[in-house]
Amino acid sequence: MLAENYKEMLNGKSVIRELFTYATERGKEIGYENVFDYSLGNPSVIPPKEFTQAMIRLLQEQDPMVLHGYSPTLGNPTFREAVAASLERRFGIPYTASDIFPTTGAAGAIAHAVRAVTVPGDEIITFAPYFPEYAPYINLTGAVLKIVPPRVEDFQINFEAFQEILNEKTMAVLINTPNNPSGIVYSTETIRRLASILTEKSKEYGHDIYVISDEPYREIVFEGADAPCVSAFYDNTLVCYSYSKSLSLPGERIGYVAVNPACKDAETIVQMCGQISRGTGHNCPPSLIQLAVAEVVDMTSDLSVYETNMNILYKELLDLGFTCVKPGGTFYIFPKALEEDARAFSEKAKKYDLMLVPGDSFGCPGYFRMAYCIDTEKVERSLVALRRFVKECYGK
Amino acid sequence: MLAENYKEMLNGKSVIRELFTYATERGKEIGYENVFDYSLGNPSVIPPKEFTQAMIRLLQEQDPMVLHGYSPTLGNPTFREAVAASLERRFGIPYTASDIFPTTGAAGAIAHAVRAVTVPGDEIITFAPYFPEYAPYINLTGAVLKIVPPRVEDFQINFEAFQEILNEKTMAVLINTPNNPSGIVYSTETIRRLASILTEKSKEYGHDIYVISDEPYREIVFEGADAPCVSAFYDNTLVCYSYSKSLSLPGERIGYVAVNPACKDAETIVQMCGQISRGTGHNCPPSLIQLAVAEVVDMTSDLSVYETNMNILYKELLDLGFTCVKPGGTFYIFPKALEEDARAFSEKAKKYDLMLVPGDSFGCPGYFRMAYCIDTEKVERSLVALRRFVKECYGK
Repeated sequence: MLAENYKEMLNGKSVIRELFTYATERGKEIGYENVFDYSLGNPSVIPPKEFTQAMIRLLQEQDPMVLHGYSPTLGNPTFREAVAASLERRFGIPYTASDIFPTTGAAGAIAHAVRAVTVPGDEIITFAPYFPEYAPYINLTGAVLKIVPPRVEDFQINFEAFQEILNEKTMAVLINTPNNPSGIVYSTETIRRLASILTEKSKEYGHDIYVISDEPYREIVFEGADAPCVSAFYDNTLVCYSYSKSLSLPGERIGYVAVNPACKDAETIVQMCGQISRGTGHNCPPSLIQLAVAEVVDMTSDLSVYETNMNILYKELLDLGFTCVKPGGTFYIFPKALEEDARAFSEKAKKYDLMLVPGDSFGCPGYFRMAYCIDTEKVERSLVALRRFVKECYGK
Repeated sequence: MLAENYKEMLNGKSVIRELFTYATERGKEIGYENVFDYSLGNPSVIPPKEFTQAMIRLLQEQDPMVLHGYSPTLGNPTFREAVAASLERRFGIPYTASDIFPTTGAAGAIAHAVRAVTVPGDEIITFAPYFPEYAPYINLTGAVLKIVPPRVEDFQINFEAFQEILNEKTMAVLINTPNNPSGIVYSTETIRRLASILTEKSKEYGHDIYVISDEPYREIVFEGADAPCVSAFYDNTLVCYSYSKSLSLPGERIGYVAVNPACKDAETIVQMCGQISRGTGHNCPPSLIQLAVAEVVDMTSDLSVYETNMNILYKELLDLGFTCVKPGGTFYIFPKALEEDARAFSEKAKKYDLMLVPGDSFGCPGYFRMAYCIDTEKVERSLVALRRFVKECYGK
């Protein structure tokens, strides 16, 4: 018989996907260039040309048996070494290849990290606003996702609420900084306080509590933002990284789990990831792409457009009277809607061809997300629609 | 706390891997060309040049935003359509794109298929000799793998034993033809009889029983073999395919689940696979490789070396007095060892630099596997060592 849990999931609808589908349909009527589609978090810039050149060179010059052969269980050593060396250079943490497990993007990384440090019934805490996919990612492993309500004044951690939810069954805390959907970056003070609480509670509960740090937006940090390296503050940190955003390769499925070498079980956790793969059918990201990424491991796409777009939108939103925390990174902004029901707000915006995602599915009703990974020219044109929308619907 | 089940798996040792490691070490002493390494099932021929050309052309000409962008949840439509059309052309079954779910190889395909048609506690039956990875693949989903003992005279299905194990909890039967490790192909008669029993038992038990048909060796079939298309005989068939062997791309992780369109839940199962991915962190195989494979979907590497090698080895093994079923495909052969304990037999063979994998881990003690995906020249040189081994150790 078919597995009912997965079958029932088919009835669930993604608000983001529905909005994107609407935008696509609307685009057929008026031209997609006239739809101000802030729905999807897809990179809008090309990968570095050095990546493409590395791919072509590998295909032309490398022995195809080596190039396309099976990766070892724990991934290609060239990739693992390149990642470890890059992390050490950038953050001063002495990662070695044995701390790195290559995965199919951050989704794959989280799938491994969660299975390594929890068993069914254990709890993982995350903080609203949060990426809605965390719920299926985690609940389908058998672990239970608990949500800390948001601290809306700055979208840092609501520590009071966190400490009420934290308990002996908490095995991991999942954080995402720079954050989807708020665009904010957890400050040094936030990370330091989180680390301190977890250290204390690990002792009290008599077991380690891990930080699973989902960092696909790590390279998209804006001027002046205080963006500390999470691992530097807490030994039991598993970084889940993806090159989807930094190299604009979302479809190629490449990322990694990096376990802080100061974590006493670092090498064991990485080896466990190799075993976890047998059940998930993972068996390493594509060999060719591991090798090509290893060659450009310190590069990124030209990510400057995201900061340009953020500044334009942030200024305009404030001018229009929105309450809005200034993003420190990512390509998202998360203002307060102009009425209590963000879904109604979003619905009205559609009439102005503005696709704004209501915050409900991010665990933060009353707010909305704009994904400004689009051309700056289109952001500028969207301001006219935004002004009309606000004026005609809310008299501002 | 670390998940003990995965941690304990680290103590498990793979006989195949150990033999391969020994072969590599021995190679450092005497030159790897002098080690007759029949341990690993890695393709020994290069991918078709058309694949490499397609990859380079896509990288040079395709818009990188499209090329490297996220695949839709159910995979790239170009790939899905190409696979469906190819299957229809070859097997006359009217597959359409909606029956195809792209996966990271056959391991990924099995991970999805098993989760779609079972819930924890359900049973899946497979037949010895079987690929040892089936145990972790299936047991880590929560389903329970049951093994039917081998029918050693021809390695077709032992139907008497099968019917004793079949029960109301059986939700799927996992078959692998052409078979690793025996190299045999299930005959039309075998498949017909299997289908007939499953049809009858599905009615009796009041629920569908699915066939999960693991077919990575489908393109490696030798002259004269009766190699029926499993799906053509049983509607509720989920084919798990990989291009690892047919296109020699094991490291690139590309394959698919193809649900027989005659299965009443075909489209639902494919859509469920998209949901299953959220828990396993799969999110489609690499976009570029889906597109490149779509262009060469009817091609294979030059696979003829495997049949050449098989004929040489089969003849020699018979001449030396081995009992051996002639392979109908793959790059494996599975003779009976010359003493009861195949592990002792394999250990002795190492002294002649022959790497032969004992059949115990394939659920078939007393037999041994040779993976003859190596150069023919080396196969020929190995015969001298094989003759010496047999003569000196067994007086034949």
